[in-house]
Amino acid sequence: MEQEYLRYDQMVDTALRGVVRDSLRQAAEHGLHGDHHFYVSFDTTHEGVEIPGALRAQYPEEMTIVLQHRFWDLDVDETGFGVTLTFGGNPARLIVPFSAITSFNDPSVNFGLQFSALQEHLEGEEGGEDGAAGETAEVEAGPADPETEPAAAAES
Amino acid sequence: MEQEYLRYDQMVDTALRGVVRDSLRQAAEHGLHGDHHFYVSFDTTHEGVEIPGALRAQYPEEMTIVLQHRFWDLDVDETGFGVTLTFGGNPARLIVPFSAITSFNDPSVNFGLQFSALQEHLEGEEGGEDGAAGETAEVEAGPADPETEPAAAAES
Repeated sequence: MEQEYLRYDQMVDTALRGVVRDSLRQAAEHGLHGDHHFYVSFDTTHEGVEIPGALRAQYPEEMTIVLQHRFWDLDVDETGFGVTLTFGGNPARLIVPFSAITSFNDPSVNFGLQFSALQEHLEGEEGGEDGAAGETAEVEAGPADPETEPAAAAES
Repeated sequence: MEQEYLRYDQMVDTALRGVVRDSLRQAAEHGLHGDHHFYVSFDTTHEGVEIPGALRAQYPEEMTIVLQHRFWDLDVDETGFGVTLTFGGNPARLIVPFSAITSFNDPSVNFGLQFSALQEHLEGEEGGEDGAAGETAEVEAGPADPETEPAAAAES
């Protein structure tokens, strides 16, 4: 997508999704040490999300996964990540574009990022050049408190 | 600098300084249209800052510049920017690394970013792997209200 003129909301959103990408990349390369663990919530209806049908039926809108000890084959590229988790003992492969992510939290250090549905936002305001910031991404300094229960509590 | 393990504060800081870089780059390429204007504050003692001695004497700690109509030769690269402004009718060339920037505001759309002195922070906490986020950069959604008077009020 071509960059629009001084759309700060887009720029901040893209920049902070890059922080999610870099965090996942570090986890893929070095594992998750200490108390670090990631809560990742994503829009299951977003284009490019690939999850088993049973999970899609169970989470028709949004799904939260936890990455801590029990995750496998975490692959991160420029556009998204893939990871294998177990649900009721059955392994499932999930593919999640970064643009589908609605929140990212590492409660061990009270770090959190919230994203709104930028895609809808863009569709609604196409052509507008003045985007107020703070709408699409927010850095939380306080304790992370994911609203939804994780689908896969991956603590061993 | 090699990336430390899951230093969210560093990652967010770097990502948001990238937003400043992209904003300045758009201004350099397309100019500043409409009511857009930038307040850029920076630490005049930071390594790599190049300003005339008279300005350094006048602003021994921090300086705020305004880019709106009367700025020239705005050059932006990966590490910082250079711009020519006039002070009392005299042109002066300023070179500012992104790492020296303490705040960036575009009041026309109430957009603002605040940065703390990451360098000092790093010196004080070297080796620590757990950085709480929100300390080094903050996205403002409210009206921008720079605390310091601009050194160059560049409105024509």
